[in-house]
Amino acid sequence: MKNEEMEKLAQAVLERITVPLEASARHVHLTQAQAQTLFGHDLTQERELSQPGQFLARERVRVEGPKGKLENVAVLGPARKAAQIEISLTDGRVLGITPPVRLSGDTKGSPGCTLTGERGSITVTEGVIAAKRHIHLHPDDARRLGVSDCQEVSLQTLTGRSVIFEAVSVRVSENFSTAAHLDFDEANACGFAKGDRGRILL
Amino acid sequence: MKNEEMEKLAQAVLERITVPLEASARHVHLTQAQAQTLFGHDLTQERELSQPGQFLARERVRVEGPKGKLENVAVLGPARKAAQIEISLTDGRVLGITPPVRLSGDTKGSPGCTLTGERGSITVTEGVIAAKRHIHLHPDDARRLGVSDCQEVSLQTLTGRSVIFEAVSVRVSENFSTAAHLDFDEANACGFAKGDRGRILL
Repeated sequence: MKNEEMEKLAQAVLERITVPLEASARHVHLTQAQAQTLFGHDLTQERELSQPGQFLARERVRVEGPKGKLENVAVLGPARKAAQIEISLTDGRVLGITPPVRLSGDTKGSPGCTLTGERGSITVTEGVIAAKRHIHLHPDDARRLGVSDCQEVSLQTLTGRSVIFEAVSVRVSENFSTAAHLDFDEANACGFAKGDRGRILL
Repeated sequence: MKNEEMEKLAQAVLERITVPLEASARHVHLTQAQAQTLFGHDLTQERELSQPGQFLARERVRVEGPKGKLENVAVLGPARKAAQIEISLTDGRVLGITPPVRLSGDTKGSPGCTLTGERGSITVTEGVIAAKRHIHLHPDDARRLGVSDCQEVSLQTLTGRSVIFEAVSVRVSENFSTAAHLDFDEANACGFAKGDRGRILL
């Protein structure tokens, strides 16, 4: 085998036994009605995200809490059934809000905040969370890696300053593109750079 | 044994096999001459820190990089032989500086920045680092835990969202009070709260 072929093979094997890491910046999900209030129209797409069907909207919001605000926060589409504001614990300190660490969709009893767009402002009584680290897996990848939906695993980051994250939630769906999602605190804590990968430890 | 005694014993055992965690906020070390330039006088003590002889100064500085600035940054005393600016990777994004991850004192070739106090301003050509996570150990604790100076270990945080930090540097000295030091990215990534402890994994 030529050197070049060997490199390619080694890379292909590595990609079979690891998952891509992605750092999720703070962002907001909105209902269609909330988007109308904030922007006067539905969300419009700026670019597609790695998860199929999800997109980054052109629209941006200001997020305000009792102690401070974050400007120019990304909004993700499509519209959802309830607002969800996903921030890091660092962001929480800026806002004066302590977000619970939760999986997306699990906002019950979480704190609220005020959101402002170019056409209006809304206050939600709950929805602010710090996204619990999780791994999206396509069923093919889940089978190969020996993990199943709702399982908790450890994730070793193959990054600048390697970390093993414990209690990482596995979510398996045909609709997912395989990727482990960290927030910016976690990404910085492990020295994440674009293209880095991680290894699931069972 | 009474319940209360048992609780006390369990706590004492736990403290023998774990180390306290501490989150280090961004801070600056200065030479005596630099302190004179920035403040017109030597550093003055606001309060003692956990490491013997170290103190938080009353004086504060502004740290500026090419893209932004951090106001009201803590200065630690006593004065050192060279300036050292310890920030998180998150702070680095604000400043537009990518600090290398280094142990304290190892600033060779690191980026510089501008520091401003109430009486003056200085620009240093190097000294900005992200502190490499490390564990200060008193020799008695090092012996009990079976680790030695300059060893690298893994550290499991017994925190809200537990993490195993790999490649944590062990520093042993009679002058140290035993504590593991994380930066704020790392502290937030593991859900650190005051009083939390960690376990050294060998």
